[in-house]
Amino acid sequence: MSELALDDVKDRLFREARTANGYTDRAVTEDVLRALYDLYKWGPTSTNQQPLRVVWCIGETAKGRLADLCYPGNAEKVRGAPAVGVFGMDLDFLRHLPRLFPHVDARSWYGDDRKLIAESAFRNSTLQAGYLIVAARLLGLATNPMSGFDEEGVNAAFFPEGNVRVNFITTLGYGDPAAVHPRAPRFDFDEVSRII
Amino acid sequence: MSELALDDVKDRLFREARTANGYTDRAVTEDVLRALYDLYKWGPTSTNQQPLRVVWCIGETAKGRLADLCYPGNAEKVRGAPAVGVFGMDLDFLRHLPRLFPHVDARSWYGDDRKLIAESAFRNSTLQAGYLIVAARLLGLATNPMSGFDEEGVNAAFFPEGNVRVNFITTLGYGDPAAVHPRAPRFDFDEVSRII
Repeated sequence: MSELALDDVKDRLFREARTANGYTDRAVTEDVLRALYDLYKWGPTSTNQQPLRVVWCIGETAKGRLADLCYPGNAEKVRGAPAVGVFGMDLDFLRHLPRLFPHVDARSWYGDDRKLIAESAFRNSTLQAGYLIVAARLLGLATNPMSGFDEEGVNAAFFPEGNVRVNFITTLGYGDPAAVHPRAPRFDFDEVSRII
Repeated sequence: MSELALDDVKDRLFREARTANGYTDRAVTEDVLRALYDLYKWGPTSTNQQPLRVVWCIGETAKGRLADLCYPGNAEKVRGAPAVGVFGMDLDFLRHLPRLFPHVDARSWYGDDRKLIAESAFRNSTLQAGYLIVAARLLGLATNPMSGFDEEGVNAAFFPEGNVRVNFITTLGYGDPAAVHPRAPRFDFDEVSRII
């Protein structure tokens, strides 16, 4: 990879990348969602647990159902986006570990500690969502992650099986550069980091 | 960015990237840690809260102190790595919002709900850690994130100010390709995703 391309990538993924407040009309197809998965799935999780579960809403009915469970500002964003991901975490991820982490019995490390298991599912599904947000940018997409919605309502509507609970949601599409807000400030390195 | 470069980036960040189980002797310098920050800091967080606080251990004393608080297998990894990041979350992030999210009073959205505030700090510091893991790969670095340590001991030793609590830790360095484990399996798209 040439230095020029590396610099372009830094811009695309981080330095110039922006949360979208509006999208072009270009649809997010199933092929794109599968290509996105084929990138973010490779990011690391504790004991390879991969607890993230995603319901992608691309139909108007699905988006409307989700929007009805969102706080007002977020509801508009959900209705107006090409796609919306509902990110859940599987609290029963342990049952998959013999297949996902076959070389050792990692289930015993969690024991029956429901708090530890829920915390681990929350942490690792969030990490996967972070990988997804960056991977989306690599594919030319933008996101707008959100937390303001009726959690119990979303669980009942999108994860009725009971073992999955919603973490957060995000819109997804091809960002409209004209709809971006001014960039908000970031901490300086020394305010949030120490080297010892 | 040419298609060839884009494909290289997909490999470097996701498809061919691996968690390191050993590192070369090359040091992780302060300049590199600052360059890493200047990438991952741009990733989005709720109300731009940026709750991640990192203590980078690069000295032998610091790494030894952390290793003594880790479970046995992790202790060896910590001692043997060029750098180790202790990732904390600032539970008092609200006090910075007038500066970080100046256009609206977002503090009122959280109210006095300590559970909501702690959950938001956990989610958003984890997202930032996810951005960091991918950004490290862009700089040619590798990580090995870990959760097995004495949480209260790490809080007391690395975040004595009290408002920051540890989330997880990771080693950081230039990965030794010879020390990589065989790749563990990933779920198929249809096992963990639905499109509606």
